[in-house]
Amino acid sequence: MMDDMVGLAAVSLLGVLEQAYFSLQVIYARRKFSVSPPRTSGPPEFDRVFRAQANCAEYFPIFITVLWTSGVFFSPGDEGTQLCGLLYLYGRFRYFCGYSQSAQGRLAPLYFSAQVLWVLIGFSSLGVVFSFCRVYLRVDPIQVVWSALPLV
Amino acid sequence: MMDDMVGLAAVSLLGVLEQAYFSLQVIYARRKFSVSPPRTSGPPEFDRVFRAQANCAEYFPIFITVLWTSGVFFSPGDEGTQLCGLLYLYGRFRYFCGYSQSAQGRLAPLYFSAQVLWVLIGFSSLGVVFSFCRVYLRVDPIQVVWSALPLV
Amino acid sequence: MMDDMVGLAAVSLLGVLEQAYFSLQVIYARRKFSVSPPRTSGPPEFDRVFRAQANCAEYFPIFITVLWTSGVFFSPGDEGTQLCGLLYLYGRFRYFCGYSQSAQGRLAPLYFSAQVLWVLIGFSSLGVVFSFCRVYLRVDPIQVVWSALPLV
Repeated sequence: MMDDMVGLAAVSLLGVLEQAYFSLQVIYARRKFSVSPPRTSGPPEFDRVFRAQANCAEYFPIFITVLWTSGVFFSPGDEGTQLCGLLYLYGRFRYFCGYSQSAQGRLAPLYFSAQVLWVLIGFSSLGVVFSFCRVYLRVDPIQVVWSALPLV
Repeated sequence: MMDDMVGLAAVSLLGVLEQAYFSLQVIYARRKFSVSPPRTSGPPEFDRVFRAQANCAEYFPIFITVLWTSGVFFSPGDEGTQLCGLLYLYGRFRYFCGYSQSAQGRLAPLYFSAQVLWVLIGFSSLGVVFSFCRVYLRVDPIQVVWSALPLV
Repeated sequence: MMDDMVGLAAVSLLGVLEQAYFSLQVIYARRKFSVSPPRTSGPPEFDRVFRAQANCAEYFPIFITVLWTSGVFFSPGDEGTQLCGLLYLYGRFRYFCGYSQSAQGRLAPLYFSAQVLWVLIGFSSLGVVFSFCRVYLRVDPIQVVWSALPLV
């Protein structure tokens, strides 16, 4: 079990490094636009960087929860989960860069990363439902579908 | 072990869906009250929705941490943990709706969900202390209490 | 495996209690400086307490992710991970107290807790790389280094 989780741990760690990068960008923007803590607003350029980081930080625990639920419980999709994880982090990176440039620039990557998150939520839901069937109904839905296929 | 965790995963996933719902409400409120990003304040109606979502998002990782610590380490309370998880999410839903209506309306469900969180923290603490006794002192506190009961 | 995790669960729980303490301080500051929700700014004394709590809350899921990745995957450093976890929480406590007093007072403990977080990120990275080698290359880097030592 531990072995399967190395990929999930690697994606999580990449997510942590991305958040660290975003936090550093806020520190640089604070210096550049002279917005010292505890203030959280300044010129629009600063506000965009600050809000981009805050939004990514807010979604980080949701992403980690869904990534691991999908990776652990939706076993047919191990590579799918890890790929979605990487795509989400890529989408968030483009969101951060786009939002730093203009409020409009955040939209396309925001929709993209939201879609990837919904795929992970779908994987997790399937994984949880399948596991419930296995544990409480003693039926393996994947095997049922698989054994019904030749009939089609 | 994995089997016991399906319930925890289901509650976590429900929590993720709840957060997604709250985020959508903020997007609708932004449109309704014309508060475009990166701005985070507007009329009090908007501010309440925004703060309700921010507060729930802030507590989400704390909730997930305590839910899993309680569920994994406080084994006599598997159903208790899952029930508390559901109650917490219900409390947060009522908190969000109440806060959206008035600042006063957030108070009762806030106290309720805080109390449920403290129960989960209590379960987690018991679970960690019991596990410490088992692993490092080689004593099972539950068995000790159980075997002492007939003497009473 | 579960046994090794008791220490990690204990540190996580301590982190949850610390966050609960910070949240209570914000509630007291709201009463003291008459800043009722949904407002999030007031006199500088309040702003500092509010931002100190917000910053700690933002880093909490990152801390939990790195703590568990390090603790689960970097096995030679079990005690090291737990010690770093405790040092981080201690640093965050001093950060909160320092920031409550003055913006300048947050800096030293902030750098300290950032350094501890980087150590945990380093441990996690080593753990993930080592596990990749074991799982996919069937090579145990620690054993390789160990068996090469007498040659030096």
